[in-house]
Amino acid sequence: MKVDVVSYRPAPDELSYTFGGREPVRRVKPGTVLELYTEDCFGGRVQNVDDLPSVVCEFPYLNPVTGPIHVEGAEPGDTLAVHFVEIVPARDWAVSSTFPHFGALTGTHTTAMLHAPLDELVWRYDVDRTKGTVRYRARRSDYTVELPLDPMHGTAGVAPAAFESRMTIVPDAHGGNLDTPELRAGVTAYFGVNVPGALFALGDGHCRQGDGEVCGTGVEAAMNTTVILDVIKGVATPTPRFETDTALMSAGSARPLEDAYRMSQHDLVTWTAGLVGLDVLDAYQLISQAGEAPVGNVCDPNYTMLAKVGKRYLGGAEAYEGMHSRLRTAAAEFSRGR
Amino acid sequence: MKVDVVSYRPAPDELSYTFGGREPVRRVKPGTVLELYTEDCFGGRVQNVDDLPSVVCEFPYLNPVTGPIHVEGAEPGDTLAVHFVEIVPARDWAVSSTFPHFGALTGTHTTAMLHAPLDELVWRYDVDRTKGTVRYRARRSDYTVELPLDPMHGTAGVAPAAFESRMTIVPDAHGGNLDTPELRAGVTAYFGVNVPGALFALGDGHCRQGDGEVCGTGVEAAMNTTVILDVIKGVATPTPRFETDTALMSAGSARPLEDAYRMSQHDLVTWTAGLVGLDVLDAYQLISQAGEAPVGNVCDPNYTMLAKVGKRYLGGAEAYEGMHSRLRTAAAEFSRGR
Amino acid sequence: MKVDVVSYRPAPDELSYTFGGREPVRRVKPGTVLELYTEDCFGGRVQNVDDLPSVVCEFPYLNPVTGPIHVEGAEPGDTLAVHFVEIVPARDWAVSSTFPHFGALTGTHTTAMLHAPLDELVWRYDVDRTKGTVRYRARRSDYTVELPLDPMHGTAGVAPAAFESRMTIVPDAHGGNLDTPELRAGVTAYFGVNVPGALFALGDGHCRQGDGEVCGTGVEAAMNTTVILDVIKGVATPTPRFETDTALMSAGSARPLEDAYRMSQHDLVTWTAGLVGLDVLDAYQLISQAGEAPVGNVCDPNYTMLAKVGKRYLGGAEAYEGMHSRLRTAAAEFSRGR
Amino acid sequence: MKVDVVSYRPAPDELSYTFGGREPVRRVKPGTVLELYTEDCFGGRVQNVDDLPSVVCEFPYLNPVTGPIHVEGAEPGDTLAVHFVEIVPARDWAVSSTFPHFGALTGTHTTAMLHAPLDELVWRYDVDRTKGTVRYRARRSDYTVELPLDPMHGTAGVAPAAFESRMTIVPDAHGGNLDTPELRAGVTAYFGVNVPGALFALGDGHCRQGDGEVCGTGVEAAMNTTVILDVIKGVATPTPRFETDTALMSAGSARPLEDAYRMSQHDLVTWTAGLVGLDVLDAYQLISQAGEAPVGNVCDPNYTMLAKVGKRYLGGAEAYEGMHSRLRTAAAEFSRGR
Repeated sequence: MKVDVVSYRPAPDELSYTFGGREPVRRVKPGTVLELYTEDCFGGRVQNVDDLPSVVCEFPYLNPVTGPIHVEGAEPGDTLAVHFVEIVPARDWAVSSTFPHFGALTGTHTTAMLHAPLDELVWRYDVDRTKGTVRYRARRSDYTVELPLDPMHGTAGVAPAAFESRMTIVPDAHGGNLDTPELRAGVTAYFGVNVPGALFALGDGHCRQGDGEVCGTGVEAAMNTTVILDVIKGVATPTPRFETDTALMSAGSARPLEDAYRMSQHDLVTWTAGLVGLDVLDAYQLISQAGEAPVGNVCDPNYTMLAKVGKRYLGGAEAYEGMHSRLRTAAAEFSRGR
Repeated sequence: MKVDVVSYRPAPDELSYTFGGREPVRRVKPGTVLELYTEDCFGGRVQNVDDLPSVVCEFPYLNPVTGPIHVEGAEPGDTLAVHFVEIVPARDWAVSSTFPHFGALTGTHTTAMLHAPLDELVWRYDVDRTKGTVRYRARRSDYTVELPLDPMHGTAGVAPAAFESRMTIVPDAHGGNLDTPELRAGVTAYFGVNVPGALFALGDGHCRQGDGEVCGTGVEAAMNTTVILDVIKGVATPTPRFETDTALMSAGSARPLEDAYRMSQHDLVTWTAGLVGLDVLDAYQLISQAGEAPVGNVCDPNYTMLAKVGKRYLGGAEAYEGMHSRLRTAAAEFSRGR
Repeated sequence: MKVDVVSYRPAPDELSYTFGGREPVRRVKPGTVLELYTEDCFGGRVQNVDDLPSVVCEFPYLNPVTGPIHVEGAEPGDTLAVHFVEIVPARDWAVSSTFPHFGALTGTHTTAMLHAPLDELVWRYDVDRTKGTVRYRARRSDYTVELPLDPMHGTAGVAPAAFESRMTIVPDAHGGNLDTPELRAGVTAYFGVNVPGALFALGDGHCRQGDGEVCGTGVEAAMNTTVILDVIKGVATPTPRFETDTALMSAGSARPLEDAYRMSQHDLVTWTAGLVGLDVLDAYQLISQAGEAPVGNVCDPNYTMLAKVGKRYLGGAEAYEGMHSRLRTAAAEFSRGR
Repeated sequence: MKVDVVSYRPAPDELSYTFGGREPVRRVKPGTVLELYTEDCFGGRVQNVDDLPSVVCEFPYLNPVTGPIHVEGAEPGDTLAVHFVEIVPARDWAVSSTFPHFGALTGTHTTAMLHAPLDELVWRYDVDRTKGTVRYRARRSDYTVELPLDPMHGTAGVAPAAFESRMTIVPDAHGGNLDTPELRAGVTAYFGVNVPGALFALGDGHCRQGDGEVCGTGVEAAMNTTVILDVIKGVATPTPRFETDTALMSAGSARPLEDAYRMSQHDLVTWTAGLVGLDVLDAYQLISQAGEAPVGNVCDPNYTMLAKVGKRYLGGAEAYEGMHSRLRTAAAEFSRGR
């Protein structure tokens, strides 16, 4: 079978700053392999420790995404499947920073306090794709250490429902800035489709990220990313879900953080009850003992948590009728063919 | 001085369900008196106790607003002043209801729980504009009691910043579904302008509402409402603010509720510090002892609280250079002229 | 009828710093009038603007209470009624302050942030009992203004259940540091009894307080306070409740603040349903339109909100079989007799 | 070196239901090996699916702990180190349950709602210590699956500060019901000492637990547990900390959940800054990229999160001057000697 491959690197003025409210930049068929370039969350403007984000970036031109991509045949009520084949840092450096009144251990716009902002500092990391590491260097001492490279996308999703258009910084039911390290290569993400064509967009690559992105930013990097898109007709998905070879995950985005936990666990409980044929309270019990709760972000306009469970505890039940396996196979074929 | 008066009653297909993302229905000059008809939050479809909202209403066609109104000369960075001259229930009845998984004492989409929804019930109120009352009637017994009529708008605001479009059910920095009983006749509301023309819209009248709108709805009613719009050039307003003859108020909308409290108190502290010429910590102390914290909603996608302080404690400082007094005078002249 | 009157002014080493875990300082019969002296939250050590609380006070010797008082015949499952006859500032001055990492607009022990503390400042107020005012004076400018005197107790309650002993700074089901301006003279407070004798204690007088006590302290003052205690046998009270001549109130103490709101509204809904003979959903609707939500504190280890409703909307229902009226009468007789 | 070994199995009437407020059951020297039997959270009363906890258990006699143990020489300001040598299920069965108004996906006492409770159900697990598994069996279908045995203690800690006594169900700065799967054999836990002798107690064994204990209970089991206690003189510990051969962890317990996240991350950032000699913002950045955030409980009176970082990212820094290594060695020697 011949696979459609579409490569797309947006010009700077093609970058998008919302989910929803924008015309598609490309139209593709289900099954298409997309090779996308994504800019980093600072639009590439922070390159050195002296490039302060609050100086070189301008609101609301932050956290650009590549897209939106119209997927033919995707209609409201369907599900868009996005398999992440590869996520490769585009440069040999990456950056992170504090940002005034942003992050989990600082007063913010919403957790409003009378303190002056924390110092705005930039950290520049060396990225070694061969070794699979990034190098942290302290700014105020000589300490340095290598951390494993673990590339991921902080921002991925589709146009929201109800005629909404949301800043890319917001995670919600449509996806958006989930900022979870679970969104790495090998994962299939599922998003409920709200508008014709789904309007998928992608951005905010991180070379790696700690749980919660506590200072507000990961190891931010432009990425060359390959995904395969497909559409599951007639099956709705209420909140973003992920599938790997070994696990199922549901994402919840809300404040306070316990509501993100509740939403994600609630979806995983009811979803797996359906997949396994369990009573809901039986699924509640099973997830209570077998479930995990990876933390996404605790710094964005909504916080994000995931609920996760090993497929081996679910008796071989398949989500979305085996979509992940099929996309995994397609990805392997595509990779072999390159 | 001759005042422009614009009357507008939207046809059903002219109702709007978002702030942002829509073309204006009217263009007016600053100083214009607007006579607006607003439909109730159910679009008028719930008229009797057997009209269950979840049956007769269809998502996302909920909480319609009248507008948006383009105000000439309003530019990003300006402030829109909206003086509420009169809010009059349009019918001799109004309704309230529970709604599945909506309200403060029920599991919801975000505070996700495994419980079945509470019973969906509708209460129909008699509205007596002459006596100034609404009559509550219990559904499951004969108990009945009159409550004072205190008309207000739950939803008022302008188009959001950052290319966003938001459902009318959401309160945020642009206004929206604040659901506070403080938004009654006699108040001047101030909204920061984010897009050319501001794009003001109004809806969700309540004959009255308890603090927090605990079951999720007020005494919902169509309204005939008169406002006067004006523009304060070159002065930004970070969050919705209200002014009466005797008090200043700041609104904060966020979750958890303490963040709505923090945002509103933070804005009132820093705003009054500037108005009175106080050090910020001195204003913090003064508001700590003289301030009030009226609760708006504790049921919408963001919760809303107000911070309020009597002008008499502020040494006669004027907000926005006396805009409220001028609009109050204009309103009196307009009312006399009718 | 002869009334027992007990006057008690604790020596400094008799002050208590917990609810629970301490022997009673006095034993009284139901119906006793208690004349109590209470020290301010700083133990009287902060007298001038140079007395920084973090220097002159020592943890955990903060927020002392007078008591506990053993009330004869009070047993677990009963309710203690405490009618506040009079709350009179004991001095002609009072103080307020910021305190490092305490308050609503600062990073705290729990809302942990990396900011240095805000400046620690003390404000000294003149108290004029004749005029009924306190005078605010800015620290960093000449601004000064009079605020109405409105004396209240921040801290009142009984020993907790389940063998617990809690710092007086904590509000919870046993009462404690509710910090609500609604606890003023004329109110009857009801506390569920958890241990034999109830072990009532009282402290933390404020000459007045804004909603939420946003900076963390009110206008703190020693008080001479008169209460009448009584016991309602065989009637449990799940959370502190207040009654005035015109209103009923339930207190909820929890974090996040929406849970304090939920707890207080839930108790008021179910309590009034029982009093009026309403179905619970009918009461939910009535409180939704007629209820208020006065904010207590948004700075203590638990936040406190009240739910409040006018008795006139409840068809003349009496709480606790008229206890408030009887204590009101007893208080009037006692006052006449003095 | 001869090691003191103390074995203790409490009689039913020796079980404790608080941290603080109780006399010690044993006094031991630092370095003592303690062999403790702990009852399960139901006091062993729930043995079959028909033993409903709300029927067979009586408040407040829930979640019993074994202790308290007085450790000689431990004084306020010191740190108690507790190395977990072994945690072995005492029976070949264990239980879990829903409980009315307890758990994360149900209305509770604090997240108060008008719903009837979810069904109360008990699940009984087979425990196979040889295979290292527990067997889950659905109640309402035939589904069954084995889960790995991963024994842990939900409840461990010392007497609180400030004359407090707390129910064992509460996690806070003194430890208590942290309910984290990280508290397994091989870990050294550190608790700040608040009273002479520290008064250590232990209970609430789980054969395993999912992240957050979403239904409110783990796979509850009586345990035979071996710990070694030691005292670090003159070093305070502000919040419970854990150390393994490869990682350091800080626990935070609070509501809302983001505050538990903030407290744990704040402690890890400032602790590791001190250990590595980093500026605090440099440590903030390092933890932001290298840190993990294991979820403890999202169902208890306070929620618990941990912040965790691999020691390999900290340049070989040692916590508490190598206490974990020394206890690890002592544990190995003791185990060899048995």
